[in-house]
Amino acid sequence: MKARVHVMLKNGVLDPQGAAVRHALGTLGFEGVNDVRQGKVIELDLADGTSEATITEMCDKLLANTVIESYTIEIA
Amino acid sequence: MKARVHVMLKNGVLDPQGAAVRHALGTLGFEGVNDVRQGKVIELDLADGTSEATITEMCDKLLANTVIESYTIEIA
Repeated sequence: MKARVHVMLKNGVLDPQGAAVRHALGTLGFEGVNDVRQGKVIELDLADGTSEATITEMCDKLLANTVIESYTIEIA
Repeated sequence: MKARVHVMLKNGVLDPQGAAVRHALGTLGFEGVNDVRQGKVIELDLADGTSEATITEMCDKLLANTVIESYTIEIA
């Protein structure tokens, strides 16, 4: 089974990577870019039957820093 | 309008970040993790009416290295 985890910085946490992308897009002549946030996507190929609870545990223990990051899990 | 771009390494391109995550999950006792691929997700807040062609151009020029990375665009 496949699962996809999105890890984004929480709202209010400064995102310098996103700010750099926004600035670079402006420099390249793209207008109307109001905001950019950059995060990680982690695609997991797991043994069939792995529970969502297990994936949540993976996120809490390793994949996300829950102090400053939030995550969402999509199971495909 | 919001758009979300996923940038992943193409199949066949070595993904050391993903390999490190897979190894770390094993070390933490999670079993059955066959493969992990890690990519980027970029959330763009754009002026209304920005065309998908413009977003594709942003990806080709800045957001993805199309030699080794593929991207998908989702418009929300």
